[in-house]
Amino acid sequence: MNYRAVETESEYVARLETGADWRAEIEALAEAVEADAAWFTALGAVQDAELWFYDQDECEYYPIEYDEPLEVASCVGNVSWLDGERFAHTHAVLSDPDGTAYAGHLNEATVWAGEVHMRVFAEGLEREHDETTDLDLWPL
Amino acid sequence: MNYRAVETESEYVARLETGADWRAEIEALAEAVEADAAWFTALGAVQDAELWFYDQDECEYYPIEYDEPLEVASCVGNVSWLDGERFAHTHAVLSDPDGTAYAGHLNEATVWAGEVHMRVFAEGLEREHDETTDLDLWPL
Amino acid sequence: MNYRAVETESEYVARLETGADWRAEIEALAEAVEADAAWFTALGAVQDAELWFYDQDECEYYPIEYDEPLEVASCVGNVSWLDGERFAHTHAVLSDPDGTAYAGHLNEATVWAGEVHMRVFAEGLEREHDETTDLDLWPL
Repeated sequence: MNYRAVETESEYVARLETGADWRAEIEALAEAVEADAAWFTALGAVQDAELWFYDQDECEYYPIEYDEPLEVASCVGNVSWLDGERFAHTHAVLSDPDGTAYAGHLNEATVWAGEVHMRVFAEGLEREHDETTDLDLWPL
Repeated sequence: MNYRAVETESEYVARLETGADWRAEIEALAEAVEADAAWFTALGAVQDAELWFYDQDECEYYPIEYDEPLEVASCVGNVSWLDGERFAHTHAVLSDPDGTAYAGHLNEATVWAGEVHMRVFAEGLEREHDETTDLDLWPL
Repeated sequence: MNYRAVETESEYVARLETGADWRAEIEALAEAVEADAAWFTALGAVQDAELWFYDQDECEYYPIEYDEPLEVASCVGNVSWLDGERFAHTHAVLSDPDGTAYAGHLNEATVWAGEVHMRVFAEGLEREHDETTDLDLWPL
């Protein structure tokens, strides 16, 4: 159990731009408000999406592509520094016209409409390589 | 990227009433605490549900109905003014006895049990018609 | 509509330990920071999982087991007292290599990687038996 106390120093609501990339928009918000660490939840819809699944044996991400409109029924993530850039670690649950749900790590998706609540922490967070999982995690 | 700084002026936890409508209960909470804008997450279970999927070509919502008990595995949304009323824009992920997930825009659902955390912002938000998507969005 | 005003007295981000139990880790965080009531959202991945579905006729939980790596696309829950212990009521949406989503009440899951944001309330919450649903709910 590794944890750290944080303090919310500012909060934002955002409307993601139709046609832009979902994750890039969240990173643009973080950039605009100079967030060194943040937590967000979001909802909306996208025109297409690329989810990633992490193979825990191969220690590699594999893409799953959707070339159709989908609802974003849930989106939870955070922003922290990774390789000198603000990275929005973004997980999402998507759904199609039948209500069928698809989910995973959201790499990219074209926004149809999106609403985000972001809380920015006073403390910065930076990801570092973790040997056990071969992922970039917080050394809390 | 359209965003606005907000400030949480109060927070609430709520237990939704068994037999009541999930979204109406959230709107009743917003009404009771006079929220002009709020963000919430929730979890619980429902006795039935109607999800909506937005057809991005037709620019119309289509309903998907479930007449069976379902878990509410995730619920994210916000409250703002729409046509003179407090509207809870609510997305949810539901699941059945096999663990199969269904998701989308939650129009209505009969509460079995529900737990909500709502943060009320000092600033009000009002939805306005957006020409591109034919949705009611925030003019941030 | 039963609700209570709460005040966030502290906030934490945590990284769940690879190999530990997902829910036990969240309860360990609550224990470490002496949370008498808290709300959290989380994301990550697990090595296996046991979801529970509540049968609203039988008033009993039935387990659904997954013995394979899954993404945690969404996790929403809260911490309050139940039978003298801090209990993390945890719902989650999981997904497999095809992006297929599974969801429900998360009883246990072996962490691969997990990131949590927890807000601790100044006010404590305790669950009590509810006759209508046969669940332990908050008497707000």
